[in-house]
Amino acid sequence: MTNARRRGPDLTEAIMRTTLELGQEVGYARLSIEAVAARAGTGKHTIYRRWPSKGALLLDSLLSLNESVLDYPDTGDVAADLREQIHATVDLLAGEAFSPLFRAMVSEAQHDPGVAAALNERFIAPQADRTVARLTAARDQGRLSRAFDLDLAMAILSGPLYFRLLITQEPLTHEYIDRVLGALFTGMEPRP
Amino acid sequence: MTNARRRGPDLTEAIMRTTLELGQEVGYARLSIEAVAARAGTGKHTIYRRWPSKGALLLDSLLSLNESVLDYPDTGDVAADLREQIHATVDLLAGEAFSPLFRAMVSEAQHDPGVAAALNERFIAPQADRTVARLTAARDQGRLSRAFDLDLAMAILSGPLYFRLLITQEPLTHEYIDRVLGALFTGMEPRP
Repeated sequence: MTNARRRGPDLTEAIMRTTLELGQEVGYARLSIEAVAARAGTGKHTIYRRWPSKGALLLDSLLSLNESVLDYPDTGDVAADLREQIHATVDLLAGEAFSPLFRAMVSEAQHDPGVAAALNERFIAPQADRTVARLTAARDQGRLSRAFDLDLAMAILSGPLYFRLLITQEPLTHEYIDRVLGALFTGMEPRP
Repeated sequence: MTNARRRGPDLTEAIMRTTLELGQEVGYARLSIEAVAARAGTGKHTIYRRWPSKGALLLDSLLSLNESVLDYPDTGDVAADLREQIHATVDLLAGEAFSPLFRAMVSEAQHDPGVAAALNERFIAPQADRTVARLTAARDQGRLSRAFDLDLAMAILSGPLYFRLLITQEPLTHEYIDRVLGALFTGMEPRP
């Protein structure tokens, strides 16, 4: 099939794949919708009809990678399940391949409210829903403190990861994730 | 004293104050070193001699506000002391007046390694040192779990705040800070 004949889901998929490829090659700042359109064999108006901005296009392209790793396993060991899911998400979005693009998108969200809203609605909220569901099951099984505030689960679990990704910019290793989870489960308070 | 005669610390102070004033008026994207120089009554080369970029200038200007609130009290109640210090820092940097500029600076740190390094060396590292010192004292007094990993203290205490500031972009209220501290002290693990 030639580019000119691609339509619908096939074209959408080609545009998003091209966005990630070009983004990795030239970086977010120099990525242009025109260049994506040219390489994907479509027109820029076709892209703008679906995505209002470069940030929105990149967000969708990154999320298209992420869908398969959002789910939590439920093996009965909630710390192990969180660890496994966070390792997978971080390997993908914060790994060497996509970390600069993902950080550029969070950067864009600081001055483009549309990108901020899309990041929250399309990435954060679904992940929060799954996290709270997994933690609710753990609480029902007596494996999570009844006092733990589930509304804070996303901020507390992923906050230390964003801190490293965006602020100290050190690598998000599995070892770091495991240490953070250990500290969050233990808590800061002395135990009797 | 006229602007033309200002020198040294006096001029430095005027440039940083002007940066914050202009930044609040026009936003980070439209802030220019030329405009800061004009309003502060100096030349842009004078500013560039001290600050290599707009991001570095803004960081110093924001930090000049923050110095007085970095210290932790030590009342013996470590949770209360953390709460008080974090309330003060957040009221300043994440308050309505400076939040857009502080977020713009973190945004800049995603593609300017100089700004990222300055943010870490001048803001994060000193705060981490003070936090670890306060928590070490608390541990010696038996008020902090001996198992708590002090190297993670900054990421765990401030990660959930950056998550709200940069990702969900909801207001950083005192109530939110208090809930986060409560959850971090209690931990996620069930208690006997």
